[in-house]
Amino acid sequence: MITVLRLGHRRGRDKRITTHVGLVARAFGADELLISTKDGGIEDTLMDVSARFGGEFRVKSGIKWRKVIQRWEGISVHLTMYGEHVDDVMLKMQKDKDLLIIVGAEKVPPEVYKAVDFNVAMGNQPHSEVAALAVFMDRLLGGGGLRKDFYGNVKIIPSKKGKKVVEVCD
Amino acid sequence: MITVLRLGHRRGRDKRITTHVGLVARAFGADELLISTKDGGIEDTLMDVSARFGGEFRVKSGIKWRKVIQRWEGISVHLTMYGEHVDDVMLKMQKDKDLLIIVGAEKVPPEVYKAVDFNVAMGNQPHSEVAALAVFMDRLLGGGGLRKDFYGNVKIIPSKKGKKVVEVCD
Repeated sequence: MITVLRLGHRRGRDKRITTHVGLVARAFGADELLISTKDGGIEDTLMDVSARFGGEFRVKSGIKWRKVIQRWEGISVHLTMYGEHVDDVMLKMQKDKDLLIIVGAEKVPPEVYKAVDFNVAMGNQPHSEVAALAVFMDRLLGGGGLRKDFYGNVKIIPSKKGKKVVEVCD
Repeated sequence: MITVLRLGHRRGRDKRITTHVGLVARAFGADELLISTKDGGIEDTLMDVSARFGGEFRVKSGIKWRKVIQRWEGISVHLTMYGEHVDDVMLKMQKDKDLLIIVGAEKVPPEVYKAVDFNVAMGNQPHSEVAALAVFMDRLLGGGGLRKDFYGNVKIIPSKKGKKVVEVCD
């Protein structure tokens, strides 16, 4: 099981970025998104996508994140530009346990850096938590997340030019 | 040379997403970002990052995007959830030519789908243009973008716990 934990989301200001984090988590193969701040709007947006495009993805906001990290029994990673290079972490990370992937907004408290098994950098340049999550999961699952069938009511058929969408009506 | 072209950016509303697109373009190995809408704020933000963290990345906004696409002499790709799967495109794409990567915001005109060499999907689920760009470039360069040295005044040293930053003063 893969859980993504989003820290430091500021309602309003981070709405679109956190929505992208959630969509990426779902599309690249995670099972659930936990958001530290309560934000019903983002929960609704992501659940609406799942209802249409399929899958079992879950979202919960207003989470006590310290407890989630403290009680996690699998592997925990924190994505940060200050961490070890992703190539190095992939070599030594156990991949058969439940995984908690922590994605921060602006400032992440030092205790998070200390509590996790790995602080992982997708390169040590500033970029984007959305990109970091996508590339980490793509590498972790060897591209498998992107080949998954979600069995949704709405299905996009890969197309060379234009758009092909199949919609199943109940 | 790799150029990223951002279409449909709405000033204000898309500021943070387009900034993430630009940071990802730079960090994952692109040479420049062209933005269709004029937005000096984003140019400044991205140039400030380059000035501190190094590299030769260029940004230009207020671009006549139709001309850029029409006159492009290398390969052009458009990242879209409606496109062919990235695995399939990677097998047939010529990689020794200049590359134009087009990243849209909400609605991309049908002419873009027709004009490009490849419409490429990082999976056919809705997610994020930031994620799509990162994963496409990561796959294209085999992770090479993330190993590049930018020779900046500010340099982050990979660290297991905490933050190590070296700053060179002029």
